[in-house]
Amino acid sequence: MTVPAVTTLETIAGGVTTPQGFRAAGVSAGIKATGLDLALLVSDRPATAAAVFTTNRAQAAPVLVSVEHLSRSGGVARAVVVNSGCANACTGEAGLAVAHGMAAETARIVGCPAEQVLVASTGVIGVGLELAKIERALPRAMSALGADQGPQAALAIMTTDPFPKEAAVRVKLDGLDGLDGFGGPGGTAAAIVGGMAKGSGMIEPMMATMLGFVTTDAAVPLPLLQRALGAAVNDTFNAITVDGECSTNDCVMLLANGASGVTVDQSSYDAFVEALRAVCLKLALGIVRGGEGATKLITVTVTGSASALEARRAAKAIANSLLVKTAIHGGDPNWGRLIAVAGRAGVAFELSRAAVSIGSIALFASGRPHDENTPAAAEYLKGTDIDVSVDLGAGTAASTVWTCDLSAEYVKINAEYRT
Amino acid sequence: MTVPAVTTLETIAGGVTTPQGFRAAGVSAGIKATGLDLALLVSDRPATAAAVFTTNRAQAAPVLVSVEHLSRSGGVARAVVVNSGCANACTGEAGLAVAHGMAAETARIVGCPAEQVLVASTGVIGVGLELAKIERALPRAMSALGADQGPQAALAIMTTDPFPKEAAVRVKLDGLDGLDGFGGPGGTAAAIVGGMAKGSGMIEPMMATMLGFVTTDAAVPLPLLQRALGAAVNDTFNAITVDGECSTNDCVMLLANGASGVTVDQSSYDAFVEALRAVCLKLALGIVRGGEGATKLITVTVTGSASALEARRAAKAIANSLLVKTAIHGGDPNWGRLIAVAGRAGVAFELSRAAVSIGSIALFASGRPHDENTPAAAEYLKGTDIDVSVDLGAGTAASTVWTCDLSAEYVKINAEYRT
Repeated sequence: MTVPAVTTLETIAGGVTTPQGFRAAGVSAGIKATGLDLALLVSDRPATAAAVFTTNRAQAAPVLVSVEHLSRSGGVARAVVVNSGCANACTGEAGLAVAHGMAAETARIVGCPAEQVLVASTGVIGVGLELAKIERALPRAMSALGADQGPQAALAIMTTDPFPKEAAVRVKLDGLDGLDGFGGPGGTAAAIVGGMAKGSGMIEPMMATMLGFVTTDAAVPLPLLQRALGAAVNDTFNAITVDGECSTNDCVMLLANGASGVTVDQSSYDAFVEALRAVCLKLALGIVRGGEGATKLITVTVTGSASALEARRAAKAIANSLLVKTAIHGGDPNWGRLIAVAGRAGVAFELSRAAVSIGSIALFASGRPHDENTPAAAEYLKGTDIDVSVDLGAGTAASTVWTCDLSAEYVKINAEYRT
Repeated sequence: MTVPAVTTLETIAGGVTTPQGFRAAGVSAGIKATGLDLALLVSDRPATAAAVFTTNRAQAAPVLVSVEHLSRSGGVARAVVVNSGCANACTGEAGLAVAHGMAAETARIVGCPAEQVLVASTGVIGVGLELAKIERALPRAMSALGADQGPQAALAIMTTDPFPKEAAVRVKLDGLDGLDGFGGPGGTAAAIVGGMAKGSGMIEPMMATMLGFVTTDAAVPLPLLQRALGAAVNDTFNAITVDGECSTNDCVMLLANGASGVTVDQSSYDAFVEALRAVCLKLALGIVRGGEGATKLITVTVTGSASALEARRAAKAIANSLLVKTAIHGGDPNWGRLIAVAGRAGVAFELSRAAVSIGSIALFASGRPHDENTPAAAEYLKGTDIDVSVDLGAGTAASTVWTCDLSAEYVKINAEYRT
């Protein structure tokens, strides 16, 4: 899946505070040993809110509280409060009380009902989160709130991430011809979608990924908003993997506050989904590019599959294969490992019609190796953006997923994570 | 699954040539740059033969030929010929011709029909195997055949294995009291089961593992033999994983030549399966202990599961988790990662009743962390044989699988495998 070039979409610099009517802050609450660790995102008016959460059965306390609040508020949110450095997962009743406390204190300061506050946490599992630290830091976050503070918030949600992930697009949502709608903020025909995300390890989202936050100043009715988020996440956050691990805290939250004066309806729904997908894709690829120990972004495309589901399954199997990831890390065009994974992925596969390419270089086709192309493929693998294609020879469906290589640095990071 | 202590079973030194009537050899055919790379195993009389093969859809040429030969011979084999250094997989018609040629030349030298020869290969996928090298080496292998040459054969089938894997047991198969049947070779009441295996990477067998060869001097009717092999493999070779990769060449072959004069029937079947399981378990654990880059053998036991299938699924998910494997490599008793994997494994899981132990040290129980035990667990993790237990809190079924830790050395080995 690549985003088609649509004339209604314009990539712009920015993040969660680029859409009108959103302010954010990132402050240090002392949860991590050093650095920013508490982010606050506030919409000036009540926003329609949709979210997707981890399918992990050990859902963390903040996930449970956010699910409850979305239900109680009927999909309305004024603020999102996020801490890094502690996942508040597997922390029992005490952890639930802390997540509720985070929401309550945020609501008090922002001036809204508690159920209009969403909560997220990320960091070590099984360690208690100190509510007092967050309560002490929240007033400072409130004072620091600004429409120019999105980058600070994006920094505050990071754990092992090597860099922050932000994205924004402007999208034309009415029937005007040409690019007239892109006249700048306040143009009635255009809305902005912005986002930030974190994630570097424990990344193979089942339903969403490690903390993504997306905002838009379009007004979007709740059913459309939830449907749009599901569609955008499916080919972006749900199509990436760093290490095949689905965390206890994954979530993507989407707030639509209508500040642009533009409303999304059935006629503009497709354009809105494209905008959302563009933002989610940039954030998701940022997560992969910044995967723990990663040195290369790998795009895995599976074609010739009996179904889209099987194509995705085979692509995920390849993207999670330690042997594929280490071979690419080492610059070795070892196509045999790609065939071996495709063959064990539990999908329809016909060796005599299968094919493997690295970049645009064919290494195996119609049951025959093309070893004469090995030197060219080895040269290509010296790059940092690697395309790998496998044709299963069993149909016409296709799927693309993204992953990173596996380095000794990954092992080092995760063998020493808590020490 | 641990093998129960049965008085009918005695572990002895030895391997594939320890049962009566088997001879083997290991020679250098020049397929690998250096060292032994061709093994020959011959039964002095036609043996009943059973086998399990990889479920990978890209089955290698030697797998296809062995399947065909077992079918054509009605489950009878005189010899097994194995090369290392080249998998003869994804090599098309040419590769099939080489595998057939290996069998034909072995049959000619041994003096038996071609379909009584089984073939196996292991090494790099997608590289052609030179039949001439094998034809030149086979006469030397035939001359070197000996009942004391099992260790040479076990060396000749290795690729990245750090050490050879051999095992043997003597098993009492009739109604005699006590240990009378263990009077030594030739005792009419006892038979021997011996085996060798190779495998270090690309190890998560779906149906069998990377090259295992088991012999017995018991006579076993083919249906019983195949059933016994399936039962033994399920809790041994199929319960291990190094890197979650099921190869194109996996197979376990079992030859029963009856040279002991003892016949396995329904009354002695259970004892025979126990003997087989003991040999397979030792070989399988050898593969894990010698897994690429491994420094620790990890026994993962899942209890409290809704079904045996789910227990196995959860145990495999834990055993393949990069985060679990790196944490144990680093000596970090990070029980949160174990809970996170159990939660995403797609099985029934109840966090409030779940528990995690490392060794016999409880780290999480009834929804509550026991961080006071972290230092003891960290000390325990300095050992090389690590037990990890997770109770899913959802039932009474259990399963055990074995894996190894993930080290930077694994990445190094596989990033540089072909360079």
